[in-house]
Amino acid sequence: MVNGIFNGDKALLARAITLVESANWAHIEKANTIVEHCLTKKTNGIRIGITGIPGVGKSTFIEAFGKMLTKAGKKVAVLAVDPTSSISKGSILGDKTRMQRLAKDTNAFIRPSPSSESLGGVTKKTKETIILCEAAGYDIVLVETVGVGQSETAVYNMVDFFLLLKLAGAGDELQGIKRGIIEMADAIIINKADGTNKDKADLAKKMFTNALHLYPAKTSGWSPKVLTASSLQNIGIKEIWDMISDFIHQTKVNSHFNKNRIEQDKRWFLNTVNEGITHHFHKDKSVAHMTQNLLLDIEQQKISPFRAAEKLLNDYTKSY
Amino acid sequence: MVNGIFNGDKALLARAITLVESANWAHIEKANTIVEHCLTKKTNGIRIGITGIPGVGKSTFIEAFGKMLTKAGKKVAVLAVDPTSSISKGSILGDKTRMQRLAKDTNAFIRPSPSSESLGGVTKKTKETIILCEAAGYDIVLVETVGVGQSETAVYNMVDFFLLLKLAGAGDELQGIKRGIIEMADAIIINKADGTNKDKADLAKKMFTNALHLYPAKTSGWSPKVLTASSLQNIGIKEIWDMISDFIHQTKVNSHFNKNRIEQDKRWFLNTVNEGITHHFHKDKSVAHMTQNLLLDIEQQKISPFRAAEKLLNDYTKSY
Repeated sequence: MVNGIFNGDKALLARAITLVESANWAHIEKANTIVEHCLTKKTNGIRIGITGIPGVGKSTFIEAFGKMLTKAGKKVAVLAVDPTSSISKGSILGDKTRMQRLAKDTNAFIRPSPSSESLGGVTKKTKETIILCEAAGYDIVLVETVGVGQSETAVYNMVDFFLLLKLAGAGDELQGIKRGIIEMADAIIINKADGTNKDKADLAKKMFTNALHLYPAKTSGWSPKVLTASSLQNIGIKEIWDMISDFIHQTKVNSHFNKNRIEQDKRWFLNTVNEGITHHFHKDKSVAHMTQNLLLDIEQQKISPFRAAEKLLNDYTKSY
Repeated sequence: MVNGIFNGDKALLARAITLVESANWAHIEKANTIVEHCLTKKTNGIRIGITGIPGVGKSTFIEAFGKMLTKAGKKVAVLAVDPTSSISKGSILGDKTRMQRLAKDTNAFIRPSPSSESLGGVTKKTKETIILCEAAGYDIVLVETVGVGQSETAVYNMVDFFLLLKLAGAGDELQGIKRGIIEMADAIIINKADGTNKDKADLAKKMFTNALHLYPAKTSGWSPKVLTASSLQNIGIKEIWDMISDFIHQTKVNSHFNKNRIEQDKRWFLNTVNEGITHHFHKDKSVAHMTQNLLLDIEQQKISPFRAAEKLLNDYTKSY
């Protein structure tokens, strides 16, 4: 499987990602081995996070941006952090009809990742998926986040460049954009800057450019840019890539690029340790047995959940 | 401290919550003891989650709703899940000027909880904080979530009733409301239904009432309601409480209320176990030492973060 990934086999890459996303412990262990092998391959990829509220035109933008990149000879992988409805378990992105042109491109790979219910789950899986895609030869990995929530912070912590898409006209409040997300952005793109929207977009560009001065300077030394674009009419798309290339060049020179990757690696290490330790704990047969009994006791209201947790922990942490 | 909480001492309650929110291990252990004691007290509180995008008028609504409840003789606690900017560490809600009238009310307690960077952190702390507030005699705990992200699922999983505030006129897409969040709602309140907005609000009410029929039936047996309200003019506020009282009555009769609490308890048990096990692991001196060394190795790029995690786990899980 690792050889297949190294050779850029899309089907094997997809299967490996499925393993990585699995909640099954046997799969997790297999996935870990694959990720470890993929990490040994020297790669030179660029990771770009793309966020914005539903309706801002993220998929149209990603399609235009991705096609421009593949035409320029790049291989592009798109990862969607897909928030699943926690009740009906239905996927919002589910429809693969999104980004149809890009999906057919031999130099593109699109992966909508169903998120588990766990808040942190998405994060870990996405980071590993980036590694697999890069090992498969993808030069640029686009990580899309849907909605404007905590997943943005997670994605921000695993990309080199963070893009925020906005619409002209609608206020920040209505767009549900939080201050923290604007702070994270290395660039704001006013999307749908076409037709009667053009003037409004130019105005919004000025407004945001001014507003960005009020935010604290970035440790990258980069001043966030505001650009307008029409994904539908393919206007301003190339300029966005030029800007990102400038950023990459500039931050490689001032060594922020590498420092940032190392900080992200440290965070990933700690997250992986924490996942591993809980995984190891629950894998233990007697822990699993006692957990089942305690869940039953909680169901019958014989014990408080907090007390039950303490009981389980006390019994199984003595051997350390 | 536990006695102080049981006696409804606000200052001691606030201090206990600070302990609960602390990342310091000594504090965590103290906090656990307090929570455990608080769980022994029989309480009869109602937990209500309130969500909606910034600008929808959540704080004005909570003030109007809270004042109505205190006037009716209830004690009300308000917990805000406050998403902190991950870069400037500044709190968005920070200003205590929000809900000033309610804050002065002797029968109200307002707590804006700063969230840590951890995705799951908010969740655990909020659940414990609910327990402390109920032990302090608060009949109704309002849990506010800011923004429209994964924190909604977290809050949904710890309340009895989940309210979604919306504005008339702005489309779902612009409001960044995801399908999953509408599915979670037990009621949708069209807020700011006053002045020239009144007709639009009534129209939106009809629209949502129809739309809700398309969603799967709830296990609670409750059909989600759509109401209009003006928090500013105090219109429709009492009706919301009447509706919630109906829900509580109905779900206590059909035993969903209790079943739901038990499901939430099971989830809380598992979350607490997982937090506890990582806490226990990192508390170990040799683990802490090796972690520091591995972080240094990652910094000097001598080892991949994934391999480093495996090394640490392998060395310290043998003793199980």
